[in-house]
Amino acid sequence: MAKLLDRINDINDIKQLKTADLERLAEEIRDFIVETISQTGGHLASNLGVVELTLALHKVFNSPKDKIIWDVGHQSYIHKIITGRKEKFHTIRQFKGISGFPKRKESIHDIFETGHSSTSISAGLGFAISRDIKGEDYDVICVIGDGAMTAGMAFEAMNHAGHLGTRLIVILNDNEMSISQNVGGLSLYLNRIRTDPTYFKMKEDVESILSSIPAIGKKVFKTAERAKDSLKYFLLPGMIFEELGFKYLGPVDGHNIDSLISVLKRAKNVDGPVLIHVLTKKGKGYRPAERNPDKYHSASPFEIETGKFKKKVDKLKYSEVFGETLLELAKKDKKIVAITAAMPSGTGLDKFKKELKNRFFDVGIAEQHGVTLAAGLAANGMKPFFAVYSTFLQRGYDQVVHDVCIQQLPVVFAIDRAGLVGNDGETHHGVFDYSYLSHIPNMTIMAPKDLLEFKEMIKFAVDFDKPLAIRYPRGYCSDLSEITKSYKIEYGRGEILINGKEIAIIAVGKMVQYGYEVVGHLKNDNINPTLVNARFIKPLDRELISNLAEKHSIIVTMEDNVKIGGFGSLINDLLLELNYTGKVLNIGVPDTFIEHGNVEDLYDLCDMSVEKIVDSIKSLCKEV
Amino acid sequence: MAKLLDRINDINDIKQLKTADLERLAEEIRDFIVETISQTGGHLASNLGVVELTLALHKVFNSPKDKIIWDVGHQSYIHKIITGRKEKFHTIRQFKGISGFPKRKESIHDIFETGHSSTSISAGLGFAISRDIKGEDYDVICVIGDGAMTAGMAFEAMNHAGHLGTRLIVILNDNEMSISQNVGGLSLYLNRIRTDPTYFKMKEDVESILSSIPAIGKKVFKTAERAKDSLKYFLLPGMIFEELGFKYLGPVDGHNIDSLISVLKRAKNVDGPVLIHVLTKKGKGYRPAERNPDKYHSASPFEIETGKFKKKVDKLKYSEVFGETLLELAKKDKKIVAITAAMPSGTGLDKFKKELKNRFFDVGIAEQHGVTLAAGLAANGMKPFFAVYSTFLQRGYDQVVHDVCIQQLPVVFAIDRAGLVGNDGETHHGVFDYSYLSHIPNMTIMAPKDLLEFKEMIKFAVDFDKPLAIRYPRGYCSDLSEITKSYKIEYGRGEILINGKEIAIIAVGKMVQYGYEVVGHLKNDNINPTLVNARFIKPLDRELISNLAEKHSIIVTMEDNVKIGGFGSLINDLLLELNYTGKVLNIGVPDTFIEHGNVEDLYDLCDMSVEKIVDSIKSLCKEV
Repeated sequence: MAKLLDRINDINDIKQLKTADLERLAEEIRDFIVETISQTGGHLASNLGVVELTLALHKVFNSPKDKIIWDVGHQSYIHKIITGRKEKFHTIRQFKGISGFPKRKESIHDIFETGHSSTSISAGLGFAISRDIKGEDYDVICVIGDGAMTAGMAFEAMNHAGHLGTRLIVILNDNEMSISQNVGGLSLYLNRIRTDPTYFKMKEDVESILSSIPAIGKKVFKTAERAKDSLKYFLLPGMIFEELGFKYLGPVDGHNIDSLISVLKRAKNVDGPVLIHVLTKKGKGYRPAERNPDKYHSASPFEIETGKFKKKVDKLKYSEVFGETLLELAKKDKKIVAITAAMPSGTGLDKFKKELKNRFFDVGIAEQHGVTLAAGLAANGMKPFFAVYSTFLQRGYDQVVHDVCIQQLPVVFAIDRAGLVGNDGETHHGVFDYSYLSHIPNMTIMAPKDLLEFKEMIKFAVDFDKPLAIRYPRGYCSDLSEITKSYKIEYGRGEILINGKEIAIIAVGKMVQYGYEVVGHLKNDNINPTLVNARFIKPLDRELISNLAEKHSIIVTMEDNVKIGGFGSLINDLLLELNYTGKVLNIGVPDTFIEHGNVEDLYDLCDMSVEKIVDSIKSLCKEV
Repeated sequence: MAKLLDRINDINDIKQLKTADLERLAEEIRDFIVETISQTGGHLASNLGVVELTLALHKVFNSPKDKIIWDVGHQSYIHKIITGRKEKFHTIRQFKGISGFPKRKESIHDIFETGHSSTSISAGLGFAISRDIKGEDYDVICVIGDGAMTAGMAFEAMNHAGHLGTRLIVILNDNEMSISQNVGGLSLYLNRIRTDPTYFKMKEDVESILSSIPAIGKKVFKTAERAKDSLKYFLLPGMIFEELGFKYLGPVDGHNIDSLISVLKRAKNVDGPVLIHVLTKKGKGYRPAERNPDKYHSASPFEIETGKFKKKVDKLKYSEVFGETLLELAKKDKKIVAITAAMPSGTGLDKFKKELKNRFFDVGIAEQHGVTLAAGLAANGMKPFFAVYSTFLQRGYDQVVHDVCIQQLPVVFAIDRAGLVGNDGETHHGVFDYSYLSHIPNMTIMAPKDLLEFKEMIKFAVDFDKPLAIRYPRGYCSDLSEITKSYKIEYGRGEILINGKEIAIIAVGKMVQYGYEVVGHLKNDNINPTLVNARFIKPLDRELISNLAEKHSIIVTMEDNVKIGGFGSLINDLLLELNYTGKVLNIGVPDTFIEHGNVEDLYDLCDMSVEKIVDSIKSLCKEV
């Protein structure tokens, strides 16, 4: 049979389809997505969960006149496929291909870009308010997961929207998961609605009781009348949302297209903010993903039949080293606690979670709370490690300043996924952390060059009694033991790896490996630089850098952070203070948002690949 | 009659007192506070509201064994007075005096420092969790206002605490205000509990109905039984909190000491998280403050009898200029909308709020939402100005990066209270904004040197089509018109105010005035620097700075931001790129948290006073 999907080039093609066809199309889309993502990798489970929902949305609403905002946005694949990007879909998340998130430049149907969680209601409210001011007429729809709903900013937006009372449709896509299993009172509450309809669907029952009451007597009748209004109000499910000013519709089966279409049409007619509670299953329709939705959340390429992931590298990842080392240390030291914001597996803490349950805390998508919780723990004598992706710690910046650093509390920030992360692109690169942390007083920042150094830094962190950040990249650990004299960490001290002349390369973190390779290449041109591993971004090793400045006429800094306010910039300040008059070359991420693609392509794009760095140094040598 | 307060030196003295004495003491404390604050200035209204609550807390609980955390902390004056700081109370908020916020170094009873809103539940949960891990036994009490409860991080913490189920007492101090009147669905909800007890106190009524039901017949009886459990659950007030996993107690009169003591004792016996809803009146007991609690929120010195504020300066404040200029422009341009996060008056937007109601949005204490709401508005064709204090925009850092700058949306951040703010101290100085904004791609940052320039910048902002920050200090506007040739703002261009030689002073914002005075002083020593007003922090005026670098052997940068990652640091990077070999002096806030005190003292402390800068430049000249 010819595929329906072959005939779908645009959302108008969706609007003509009857339910049965939409159901068939949903299955075809599932196959298409599984097939594509099994090769490219990508966010699989969340997309499989919203196939019917996306079709129903585009059937009922008229995008782009009606505004659909995808919270987080990694579940927008179906939306992309049916809004004219089917042919390009195989390029998803690839360098110069389409993005894994909504992008305004890709399509008029991507009206607001997302990537981090829980922004959609705020943005949607902005669209709704401007619609009202301009006297326009259309719907604004925010599709947000139950995980994203636990983040504070979603609550802030709900609170404001409920107060304003303008028309706004929030679709709560409840799949009982954020990336891993959800946490929080709210999630327990949603679970009650989901699993025990009798617990909530009392409305009819109670009304029948109330209507039978006149028989009992006048006094009771009066009381009952008074009670009636509030009872009606309370006995609907979803009253948390009703209390905040939203009309609640649902729960509705998110894989039943008719039910979805009908509830969306009802929502269109509500004159005020409305929340539709849609129940979906992550990974729906692809067994391996249904069984392990977290493993297929952001999947690398896999075999469709078995679900097995293709890439197997016999090297340790930084996250794994972090999790294992911390667990080991925590078994010996009862003060150690681990915190994650919805990333127990991504940050390597699964084993810690299992083995030291009472000292492991998943706060949900709630980085602000996570940071201050850590501060509270530290103020009461514990040693908290908050493991968090660089890009997400941005959410807790104020709390790092205000709750941790002002009080000089010994919280350790284990900052994962630092530097250019690759296929997730603009919204996920961890390239700002040196810049947003280094200007905070009382903060110490380290970055390991390789596996063994990372372990030593974690050990160092346990006994360090002030705020500390250790930042490390996504992926596999380097091994630079052949040029390392000692892995012992001393506060504020870097190490010279190679003694050379004329040029001093001061690299940090992952870039030390690059520096080593650069030195190798330069040898061919008879250039023999000194190579230094900074270890500490803050405080800088002033003594070491003074010595380097005295003995070298060119200083090259290397970091995988933006140059502005970064490691190189800190060195520049020091060099000027030292009245250094040699040349300085800062290698780092330029002042622009870096697109998605594999890390190698992005390094090249940023003039940060070994080849490009070698070229830059050679041209500088010629100038001198 | 001898004063009771004279005999109170310690919280143990409170524990002996009977209710009548506590009531008398409450009145004496009110008088003492009004008297002191009328002279020193400070947070008056919020403290007058929690006199009985504080006394009851210290009567029932044993601080510091029991842990009391004051959210925001500006309401901790009574706590300070009765925990040994009565004698020093007259030094509050003064340089080297006691702080207006809890400080751990001041007292063992200040167990966690606060300043920004909504951190207490996270911190308290940290204390509670560590108590459990260590097997200790005491209470943790977080006192949080209803305004602070609208911030996302409070919700994140409630959600987590409700999930964990550990013992934690949250006192919701509901005075219907944040600094100005509260906003949000949650506040409407609290208002219903507050104003219409019959609306909520249905529990007994309903139970009596249910108990009468057996008479009606067996079928109904069964239904009723099933309904009973959920009914009980729902018909208590505060079920939002109950749904999140908290036991709700209240509402209780926050000025009735007996009621307070009794509810606190009940809370002590709850085995899990409990929320006590306490109703208080801001400004209670001092008429002018009761009538205008927002005016007496953070009060400058005043006459007790009339309530009149003493200081009257015949100059315009930056906030006023902002509010008036924006209103004027908005009347002509319907795209302009104004956003504030609970600071309509502080940011100068009161008139805008009154006159252009439908284009004014107070989002509550919700900076994250505020930023992304602005992004949504901008994405839909509006021109949003988010007026926000520098220190509070820290809460929205991720949203500035992720929602505004990646999409290059034309949001204007009107960043008030930048630089050293004075008496509020560490937690409130706006000294990080250049550093946390300048490394964000697509961001433009300006700072006005004086009143007229500020107006021009606001006008410039209206037509500027990318993310833009204008940052300006607390207080009165300078007037540098006598040395200004033109106030016309050109993108990325600074201006030379004084043409001199050898030394180039490049100042920005408020520091241009200082620079002018510095130049005046240096003349006496026959030093005649060039004086430049940068206007733009980002992008820097490369052409202008190149020219300056060529012609001057000393470059001095001046900013009221931390030096790390700040304006001077950006200039340093450029100077190195230009191979500048002269001397560089960066004037700015050092890498440490700056205490409270009047601004002049703090400038001196930071070597940023005119005198200190003159000295620094003179010594540098001698070196050369």
